[in-house]
Amino acid sequence: MITTVLFDIGDTLLLAAARPGTPVDELVTEPLSDVVRTVRALANVYRLGTVADTSVMSSYDVRAALAGTGLDEVLEVIITSADVGAPTPHPRGIHAALLALDAEPSEALFVGDSDGDEGAATAAGVAFARVGPAYDLAGSVRRALTGIDGSFVAASALVAPIDLPAARRAREHHDRLTKPQGSLGRLEALGIQLAGIAGCDPPPLPRPAGIAVFAADHGVVAEGVTPWPQAVTAQMVANFLAGGAAINVLAQQAGASVTVVDVGVATDLAAHLDELARPRPSALVHRRIRSGTRNLVTGPAMTIAEVRAALDVGADIAGQLVAGGAKALVTGEMGIGNTTASAAVIAAFTGRSPSSVTGRGTGVDDDTLRRKVDVIGRALRRIPAGAEPDVVLAEVGGLELAALVGFITAGASHRVPVVIDGVIACAALLAATALCPGVVAYVVAGHRSAEPGASAVLETLNLEPVLDLGLRLGEGTGACLALGVIEAAAHVLCDMATFDSAGVKGAD
Amino acid sequence: MITTVLFDIGDTLLLAAARPGTPVDELVTEPLSDVVRTVRALANVYRLGTVADTSVMSSYDVRAALAGTGLDEVLEVIITSADVGAPTPHPRGIHAALLALDAEPSEALFVGDSDGDEGAATAAGVAFARVGPAYDLAGSVRRALTGIDGSFVAASALVAPIDLPAARRAREHHDRLTKPQGSLGRLEALGIQLAGIAGCDPPPLPRPAGIAVFAADHGVVAEGVTPWPQAVTAQMVANFLAGGAAINVLAQQAGASVTVVDVGVATDLAAHLDELARPRPSALVHRRIRSGTRNLVTGPAMTIAEVRAALDVGADIAGQLVAGGAKALVTGEMGIGNTTASAAVIAAFTGRSPSSVTGRGTGVDDDTLRRKVDVIGRALRRIPAGAEPDVVLAEVGGLELAALVGFITAGASHRVPVVIDGVIACAALLAATALCPGVVAYVVAGHRSAEPGASAVLETLNLEPVLDLGLRLGEGTGACLALGVIEAAAHVLCDMATFDSAGVKGAD
Repeated sequence: MITTVLFDIGDTLLLAAARPGTPVDELVTEPLSDVVRTVRALANVYRLGTVADTSVMSSYDVRAALAGTGLDEVLEVIITSADVGAPTPHPRGIHAALLALDAEPSEALFVGDSDGDEGAATAAGVAFARVGPAYDLAGSVRRALTGIDGSFVAASALVAPIDLPAARRAREHHDRLTKPQGSLGRLEALGIQLAGIAGCDPPPLPRPAGIAVFAADHGVVAEGVTPWPQAVTAQMVANFLAGGAAINVLAQQAGASVTVVDVGVATDLAAHLDELARPRPSALVHRRIRSGTRNLVTGPAMTIAEVRAALDVGADIAGQLVAGGAKALVTGEMGIGNTTASAAVIAAFTGRSPSSVTGRGTGVDDDTLRRKVDVIGRALRRIPAGAEPDVVLAEVGGLELAALVGFITAGASHRVPVVIDGVIACAALLAATALCPGVVAYVVAGHRSAEPGASAVLETLNLEPVLDLGLRLGEGTGACLALGVIEAAAHVLCDMATFDSAGVKGAD
Repeated sequence: MITTVLFDIGDTLLLAAARPGTPVDELVTEPLSDVVRTVRALANVYRLGTVADTSVMSSYDVRAALAGTGLDEVLEVIITSADVGAPTPHPRGIHAALLALDAEPSEALFVGDSDGDEGAATAAGVAFARVGPAYDLAGSVRRALTGIDGSFVAASALVAPIDLPAARRAREHHDRLTKPQGSLGRLEALGIQLAGIAGCDPPPLPRPAGIAVFAADHGVVAEGVTPWPQAVTAQMVANFLAGGAAINVLAQQAGASVTVVDVGVATDLAAHLDELARPRPSALVHRRIRSGTRNLVTGPAMTIAEVRAALDVGADIAGQLVAGGAKALVTGEMGIGNTTASAAVIAAFTGRSPSSVTGRGTGVDDDTLRRKVDVIGRALRRIPAGAEPDVVLAEVGGLELAALVGFITAGASHRVPVVIDGVIACAALLAATALCPGVVAYVVAGHRSAEPGASAVLETLNLEPVLDLGLRLGEGTGACLALGVIEAAAHVLCDMATFDSAGVKGAD
């Protein structure tokens, strides 16, 4: 488990433009692209230090040179060649930094750009991440952390703060466009958020979107919380793959891809898959962790290890969609019984009563609703106050719900907008923010689900949904439907004329 | 002014499949395509009768044969050859029908399919409309009525009732799709409306949409009701033509066309137009009725003749867009000062106080808002209670606002959804429903404008907007932004699998 990250400076954090002997005050201290956001993200989770290869500068000089970059505030320790008494890279520098940060070599990652850096890391007994010639610091660190602690932990460590200067530029940009100030309402706020996420104005179009539909079953259906047979989860997976479900139709219209992930369907899919014609409109990813959760009334729905595996599945899928070109992610799910698990998760995280956050899901009668509330109340009694988020997920969550936590977190770590759908996604978002508070800045609430638990989450997290159309289907449909509005927010900043360019006179 | 419409029957209302001598109970009485909706529309405005060429049937027999078609209820008079004592077409049949309906020949239109019908109409001194080989009854009647009474009057007469059986089929269709019943919320209601408008399920996609931006100026700006100089109307027209305004950007995303109509800009456009590069992204239609309205505080903003001319401009543009392939219409407008006129129109039609329906428009301060409310109150004192809608429009309306009334009405008469934008479109919709109540069934409220007058209208007409994003720009932007959701409603009915087809089991 990594607790400490150390960086080489030249060509890792800053461009090493200086020849030996360059006077201190002429050194280039402009951080490489995206370095500041990445290092600040890591600072939320790890203790950070640098080992600088400079014999002409003291630690004090380096810190002074970094002042104003945003890096000096988060680098707790700066070790230079002078401090070590040897030119770095040298294991002695790494050890000095670890000593100062009170960390074992096995808990540390060293990030550098050269064979020498790697050799020093190996000699010091610490893990190594190499920043390649493309200087993708976040990608290099992600690969190394994923190898050691898994893709979810890596993602959580790389959720960077929003780029406030870019957001500010977008706001000022809006006021120069040929329209009265603020007259595009929420569209302007969305555009500013997109600029802050991407770190530039105008922001890139959030298109195409990648929709992941995580499918899993729920042992709690044994309690009679839904009128739908459990087999429908598998039948709907087949329907997704054949392109006949609502999410397929809406995704097609939005130009988005649909990736279906079996993270825990209870019944055999093979028979369904054999019947499907090829080519299938949607891809199926086999990542089943177990065939449905256990009944959350009689004990934990999952083990902690199963939760962590599901978090990694979600993070992996987000990474694959982004690598495949997705510029926005949409949360989707399918699982008979999952509004029961979601209401339980929401009650656990918000402290609200089960009856206030439990709805009729896909259409239950009064008796079933009462049973649902009762079941949730009984399960929640097992969860101690202040339980860790992964314990809450293990006790009353679901496999698709945990996968969504990983998906949302990883989407944020990849700096793309994550459009969340209904009550299951809202429950997952609550858990994601409990594990990594920074994710919420990357989230757009696609719509207000008719389920009361969804509104409870939106209120708790102060999120205003894009749409409010009384949807209660799930699958990602409400979020997918919001994509057009979110894209419009980017188009406004990308394509509108300014008062100056159009020769339009402003208000007196 | 037409008050009475008479129809030939064979090959005009019904297929003339019968040979002479066919027994009465074997006659085909299935109305031709769309005949029932068209005739029922005309029945809202005109007295109707038929002149049937049949010597073997009495009027009683014809009425019995029509029973159940929906036509017998609205045809007040049925004249047959037997009644006239001569084979029709014959002027004597037309005269007998007019006598029964107490109408002068100059007030009547005869609709037939043959040279003989036309000869009889000419001999009887009535106008004639020929149903061509394509049996487009509505189109034939529209052309004739437009020639006599103008395109707005023709459109008002052709606003048909919604096709309830098609709407019912769409509702039942929704319940067979692979989703819990009702789980797509407002999307289902929109799909049902689209089916009812088009008269079929699944409904056609409402794409591409045609956006008309009616531009005009307002004499009331002399009262200091806005901080924007009047020249901005013309500058924004140039911006629309150059493709730089918000509506251009959103239209491009939605695959919609933008047609800019100068129905009353106060300043010269020529200088602006000369500066524009070609090809221009949007078309400009020159239909200026006058260079801005008069100041509505000091007297009527327009004459009744100017109002009617503007109604016709709007109806013409709707017809041209539909003829050009638009499957939905979007209302757009531009006119410095037009939130003042709109608030006045809304107050006049709803009886609400000026202060409750007047907003800050494109951003006015407290003093200006007070002045706006005061100006509206003074103008409204001139309007007698129960004034005709065209009088209200003449007193306090605007040229673009009246054009929108015609545009909305004609869109409904062409049986396409009309997506309305903000407060100016809402004011126009109020006037349109006062002139022709049937239009509201064809209207989709695109969004809830931040202007209070818009919400007053939506409440009055019981319309729930698709979006609520705090927009207050106009131009058609909010309506355009809603197009994706409206299209999605059609996609759901067109493309989703049913429980049967997908092999998904329903709820227990």
